Amino acid sequence: MTPFIAEILGTALLILLGGGVVANVNLNKAIGQNSGWIVITTGWALAVFVGVVVAGPYSGAHLNPAVTVSLAIAGSFPWADVPAYLAAEFIGAMIGATLVYLMYKDHFDATEDGGAKRAVFCTAPAIPNSFRNVLSEAIGTFVLIICVLYFAGAEFTDSVGTTTKVGLGSIGAIPVSFVVWAIGLSLGGTTGYAINPARDLGPRIMHAILPIKGKTDGGWGYAWVPVVGPLVGGALAAFLFVALSS
Amino acid sequence: MTPFIAEILGTALLILLGGGVVANVNLNKAIGQNSGWIVITTGWALAVFVGVVVAGPYSGAHLNPAVTVSLAIAGSFPWADVPAYLAAEFIGAMIGATLVYLMYKDHFDATEDGGAKRAVFCTAPAIPNSFRNVLSEAIGTFVLIICVLYFAGAEFTDSVGTTTKVGLGSIGAIPVSFVVWAIGLSLGGTTGYAINPARDLGPRIMHAILPIKGKTDGGWGYAWVPVVGPLVGGALAAFLFVALSS
Amino acid sequence: MTPFIAEILGTALLILLGGGVVANVNLNKAIGQNSGWIVITTGWALAVFVGVVVAGPYSGAHLNPAVTVSLAIAGSFPWADVPAYLAAEFIGAMIGATLVYLMYKDHFDATEDGGAKRAVFCTAPAIPNSFRNVLSEAIGTFVLIICVLYFAGAEFTDSVGTTTKVGLGSIGAIPVSFVVWAIGLSLGGTTGYAINPARDLGPRIMHAILPIKGKTDGGWGYAWVPVVGPLVGGALAAFLFVALSS
Amino acid sequence: MTPFIAEILGTALLILLGGGVVANVNLNKAIGQNSGWIVITTGWALAVFVGVVVAGPYSGAHLNPAVTVSLAIAGSFPWADVPAYLAAEFIGAMIGATLVYLMYKDHFDATEDGGAKRAVFCTAPAIPNSFRNVLSEAIGTFVLIICVLYFAGAEFTDSVGTTTKVGLGSIGAIPVSFVVWAIGLSLGGTTGYAINPARDLGPRIMHAILPIKGKTDGGWGYAWVPVVGPLVGGALAAFLFVALSS
Repeated sequence: MTPFIAEILGTALLILLGGGVVANVNLNKAIGQNSGWIVITTGWALAVFVGVVVAGPYSGAHLNPAVTVSLAIAGSFPWADVPAYLAAEFIGAMIGATLVYLMYKDHFDATEDGGAKRAVFCTAPAIPNSFRNVLSEAIGTFVLIICVLYFAGAEFTDSVGTTTKVGLGSIGAIPVSFVVWAIGLSLGGTTGYAINPARDLGPRIMHAILPIKGKTDGGWGYAWVPVVGPLVGGALAAFLFVALSS
Repeated sequence: MTPFIAEILGTALLILLGGGVVANVNLNKAIGQNSGWIVITTGWALAVFVGVVVAGPYSGAHLNPAVTVSLAIAGSFPWADVPAYLAAEFIGAMIGATLVYLMYKDHFDATEDGGAKRAVFCTAPAIPNSFRNVLSEAIGTFVLIICVLYFAGAEFTDSVGTTTKVGLGSIGAIPVSFVVWAIGLSLGGTTGYAINPARDLGPRIMHAILPIKGKTDGGWGYAWVPVVGPLVGGALAAFLFVALSS
Repeated sequence: MTPFIAEILGTALLILLGGGVVANVNLNKAIGQNSGWIVITTGWALAVFVGVVVAGPYSGAHLNPAVTVSLAIAGSFPWADVPAYLAAEFIGAMIGATLVYLMYKDHFDATEDGGAKRAVFCTAPAIPNSFRNVLSEAIGTFVLIICVLYFAGAEFTDSVGTTTKVGLGSIGAIPVSFVVWAIGLSLGGTTGYAINPARDLGPRIMHAILPIKGKTDGGWGYAWVPVVGPLVGGALAAFLFVALSS
Repeated sequence: MTPFIAEILGTALLILLGGGVVANVNLNKAIGQNSGWIVITTGWALAVFVGVVVAGPYSGAHLNPAVTVSLAIAGSFPWADVPAYLAAEFIGAMIGATLVYLMYKDHFDATEDGGAKRAVFCTAPAIPNSFRNVLSEAIGTFVLIICVLYFAGAEFTDSVGTTTKVGLGSIGAIPVSFVVWAIGLSLGGTTGYAINPARDLGPRIMHAILPIKGKTDGGWGYAWVPVVGPLVGGALAAFLFVALSS
């Protein structure tokens, strides 16, 4: 499996499971409807786990443009490989979102609330405020990236073309999923913790394309926030890491 | 312990604990009644953990015909051993379902709702739709099998007669249980994630045989879905794995 | 630390945390009141984790007469040491229950329901039925002991006087706590999963002794069930283990 | 990264995530509002995980004056380094609390209840009683410190200036987070489990300084309890550890 394919597959699994848990909680007649924040956050954490288990040994399992760019800033990922990784992450996210739609289509049809349906694809702020929403996404992503950079097991010190093993096999995917669990539980209350441009923008595009019955607008006025915020927060983490390492 | 016995014991534990958690949440006067989707999904995930801990070193802990067949397709399990494994998995599932009934019998008697009682044994779709229900079960099982095939610890690269150790001892059973947790939380909302023909059909047969008071029909019109869907999804994962490995 | 002290300390921590989570969920004005079955079962699972982390390297962390007796039956613990272990487990359980009372005393005083208060100390059946309640406790304990016996990390192959390390350090305590989590979620719905004679009888004695305001009867007619059931279930697991090993 | 910086960073992450989960559950319009005790306790446990993952290899990740002082009493941390560690822990806690405020400011503004807002920063007893509240905090911290001292992986046997690796990389941070999860679920019901003077007093000071709209009093009459209780409980654990080791 090439790193490009691994990033597509890993991100598709991430968004299939991450979008899936929101569908299960939000959509009418879903068996897990209204099962709450603990289900949402555990689902997303384990979505990361699955994506990392599969893609980790082949691509380092970035699954997130903020990870890719931050690792490049920190000097542990080659800039030349960034464009291909970003492309793969967006392709994977769009595939994952499409699978969620195909799987939960009857439940989308059974749901009136357009906002609840769009939330399966992309985030929206609890209280709109451009500055503070960017800040929220930046802080959440800062926590993710600072942990990724300091993981002792070096799960992410990856180089394209060379297969690097995740430390301790599939057990090594647990810490990053715990970090995402933490971010969701604690920092997800304001903007829904996109903390990943591909996770938000890719599915938002699919929300626009897919023939979802009774869908609401795409929330495009907000779409830049979960792109800019994570990139800013990740970059700050990378700069801090470099400063503290010198 | 022979692999045949190990598969029976492991699958019996899986269904005892998996059926047990549904009984606890669904049946009247059970202490955990109405404790929600987080309890159901955590219970099933840990049911897999227990089954794998016990059977893993002796049979590879398939506990699931979709796992057995997919591993055979992927070339990491001998086709000649498939029939015995499938038989053991169904026997184990029927034993487990019987134990749940014996243990929770007074609670079955205290429950009017035949559908809630049958759900302790087998799954039913939230919205009946043959194509989409098969798709749901196939996607859920695809996620399971693709993870099993890519686990670095090689918990499942098993051969009959040779005792292979699970990586890292009982710790090595955690990743597969996390994957099942993820599938339940995210993809269980449509059909209740059988993702295992023996888990659904074995207990469904016991539901028909056991003298459950006030039981409803066996849902036999749907019984083929949680058999066909998982086999299709698992086969797709195996084909993809083989294609990406070449 | 001698094994005797280790069993006291470990069991005291087990019951402090296990009784504590029931106090937190059951008693008036407790911050976690009515937080549900997921809190109860996670609390008990982690109570086992803490007890095993501390006592594991010094005594093997039985913390449970059913574990001690079953290991002796299976030939991996000397019968001569059984009485001292049982004594330590009961002493520890009584200390733990006393600490819960001292800590939550104002909440005991603020609670009318004598049954809710007694449940902090010991179990009671959801539907009284001697045969089926014994069966429930036996099945739950069977699952615990069969897992303990098959753990690859050999956390419990202990001998008194020799300090044996828990596999993988404190990480090695996770599997047994996951097994207890599974038992609670799935098999706790009928009798509240004592699965440990010391865990039930020790605190029940303290419930009788301590000057709890407005306490109800001690449920003594039921007190033999969580003693006999676990011993029977554990013995069955040990016999099966021996039979399958030969 | 020096140990001083590591303690600041680790404690800031701890309080950002720990305060954040309370903000998410307590404040109006937060997406996780009213999601309950399982969310609070899981959030705090994972907050510890994140802090330990990042700071562990550089400072031993005390993140808590009770840990620092107890380790000094137990002879595994130099007294000369205690003041700098305590200072770093308080600085980190104040930074973390400020970040929570900045991130959730619009939700603070949308919330009337001053008590709910203050709870994001510091604890308050469910039933005020100086003796028993100190006892609660002491017992909770005793459990934390006794586990830290007995961890086989030696995650905390730290000395300043020497970089000591956390056992098993980031996996090694899981046990301490499980212990904190246990304490929260079981012993958090009385006083909200500060179990850390810096975690309570640092943010309480920030609550006084920050321009929070409609804030209530600082609960200063209680502020000594989550300082004294944890120090007493931690010291008792250290004395017991030393006594049992001789």
